[in-house]
Amino acid sequence: MKLVPLGDRVVLKQLEAEETTKSGIVLPGNAQEKPQQAEVIAVGPGGVVDGNEVKMEVAIGDKVIYSKYAGTNVKLEDEEYIIVRQNDIVAKVEG
Amino acid sequence: MKLVPLGDRVVLKQLEAEETTKSGIVLPGNAQEKPQQAEVIAVGPGGVVDGNEVKMEVAIGDKVIYSKYAGTNVKLEDEEYIIVRQNDIVAKVEG
Amino acid sequence: MKLVPLGDRVVLKQLEAEETTKSGIVLPGNAQEKPQQAEVIAVGPGGVVDGNEVKMEVAIGDKVIYSKYAGTNVKLEDEEYIIVRQNDIVAKVEG
Amino acid sequence: MKLVPLGDRVVLKQLEAEETTKSGIVLPGNAQEKPQQAEVIAVGPGGVVDGNEVKMEVAIGDKVIYSKYAGTNVKLEDEEYIIVRQNDIVAKVEG
Amino acid sequence: MKLVPLGDRVVLKQLEAEETTKSGIVLPGNAQEKPQQAEVIAVGPGGVVDGNEVKMEVAIGDKVIYSKYAGTNVKLEDEEYIIVRQNDIVAKVEG
Amino acid sequence: MKLVPLGDRVVLKQLEAEETTKSGIVLPGNAQEKPQQAEVIAVGPGGVVDGNEVKMEVAIGDKVIYSKYAGTNVKLEDEEYIIVRQNDIVAKVEG
Amino acid sequence: MKLVPLGDRVVLKQLEAEETTKSGIVLPGNAQEKPQQAEVIAVGPGGVVDGNEVKMEVAIGDKVIYSKYAGTNVKLEDEEYIIVRQNDIVAKVEG
Repeated sequence: MKLVPLGDRVVLKQLEAEETTKSGIVLPGNAQEKPQQAEVIAVGPGGVVDGNEVKMEVAIGDKVIYSKYAGTNVKLEDEEYIIVRQNDIVAKVEG
Repeated sequence: MKLVPLGDRVVLKQLEAEETTKSGIVLPGNAQEKPQQAEVIAVGPGGVVDGNEVKMEVAIGDKVIYSKYAGTNVKLEDEEYIIVRQNDIVAKVEG
Repeated sequence: MKLVPLGDRVVLKQLEAEETTKSGIVLPGNAQEKPQQAEVIAVGPGGVVDGNEVKMEVAIGDKVIYSKYAGTNVKLEDEEYIIVRQNDIVAKVEG
Repeated sequence: MKLVPLGDRVVLKQLEAEETTKSGIVLPGNAQEKPQQAEVIAVGPGGVVDGNEVKMEVAIGDKVIYSKYAGTNVKLEDEEYIIVRQNDIVAKVEG
Repeated sequence: MKLVPLGDRVVLKQLEAEETTKSGIVLPGNAQEKPQQAEVIAVGPGGVVDGNEVKMEVAIGDKVIYSKYAGTNVKLEDEEYIIVRQNDIVAKVEG
Repeated sequence: MKLVPLGDRVVLKQLEAEETTKSGIVLPGNAQEKPQQAEVIAVGPGGVVDGNEVKMEVAIGDKVIYSKYAGTNVKLEDEEYIIVRQNDIVAKVEG
Repeated sequence: MKLVPLGDRVVLKQLEAEETTKSGIVLPGNAQEKPQQAEVIAVGPGGVVDGNEVKMEVAIGDKVIYSKYAGTNVKLEDEEYIIVRQNDIVAKVEG
């Protein structure tokens, strides 16, 4: 059983606090905009979204920083996921 | 008697809590945005919506996660349905 | 004396509660968005609306579900009508 | 002395309550949106408005229902007028 | 010393209450939208504004009715002016 | 050390009250929109901004009236500047 | 480990108050809009963003003034960064 995102949606799995600390990232808790580090689990096909051609720039396995405004939280077989638009992903973390 | 959606509208039937639990999905109750698992009952023809060409990506029988912002609830012959725009569907659930 | 809608406007006549119950539809009363079953009385010519070509998809006599956000209520010769944009009609009811 | 509307503006003269009652129209008083019956007094030239080509669909003498959101009220030589965009006119009343 | 408006801006000089009364116009004081009669003092060149080609439709000396939402008030050598976008001018007064 | 504006940004230096009075301009203090007289210090290159081609219409040394909605205040080597979009400049003052 | 911005995003490192004072820039603390001086650490590829072609105008090492509306704060290996859209950068500081 898996999540298959539509359009420019991306399925993310948030990195645990422990992992986050180990990797040297601290996520500041901010009420207005909560930046988050997560791993890309599934990537939508892109294509025309709201009349604009969207090319997907992230791939499964990427570590990303996203800005959680309107992400949708889902729990599937005891795992929690966040589904965001690619535009809500602001950067990849590499190296 | 059946619902025939217009444009990019999709008619959904929410999966019962029991089914949801059996299928391993738990829907978190969130006041701002209520993600929902549902089954696709009918799909509009797509076409030009607000000046943009919309291609329908879901099919009858698909299990989907949608983000209920502006869905319209209807009760027809004792069955409850939700009518959403395709853009409010964030992912399919497969497998 | 009749109402001739402009652009993508559609003149609707709300189905009475009795009719609604007989036809098996129950309209949930929701303060934010009131879905409504109604019959199409007159249909605007469509054409270019706000710069987008709009093709009318409903016809006189159609039973429709609409989402009453900004409809205009009018009483003409003791009959009440609602004038909506076609985009506020989410589905037809057939069969 | 006369009002010459610009762009897609239309000059209306509201029908008096007496006239309205005689013609069988009752205008419900609604705080959010006040539908109004009026007669078209002058019609702007249309043309490109906010980047969209607007074709004028109403003519002097038409009886219309308009939705008064942002109309501008003017009193000229003891007559009161309302100047609206054509898009605020939802239907003509004919017959 | 003079004001040279940019883009689709128009410099207006409000007609005095006395003049207004003499010319038969009464300007209703409305907190939400204050319609105003004024004389056109200077007209911007038009051209592309926010991506749309704007053609100037008013000329110096025109008497106009404008809708004062976001006009900018300026006092230059003891004269007060209002600078509005042409789109805030709803009609000319002729005759 | 100097400020080099990007896109359609313009760096302004507000004229002092003394200068303003000498030049015959009085700037009304208005809480909603504070019109300001200023001198143009630097002009961005223009080009495509938010998908629209913007041609710069002001030049270094111009005296301008601007509408301070979202200007950014900066202090550089004891001089204060305001950086605005060209669209926030409503007129030049000439003569 | 490094941040690789997507689209028109730019990774900034805020200049310390000491540096700021040394360089002669004082950043006024303003609740509505906090202008900030920062150094560009990484620049996204640009390309089509929201349907508009964006060309990146800043380069690594540039000193910039940005307007912090919706920037995302991230802490990576004990360094704090701000990720903004290029459009939130109003000027470069040169010389």
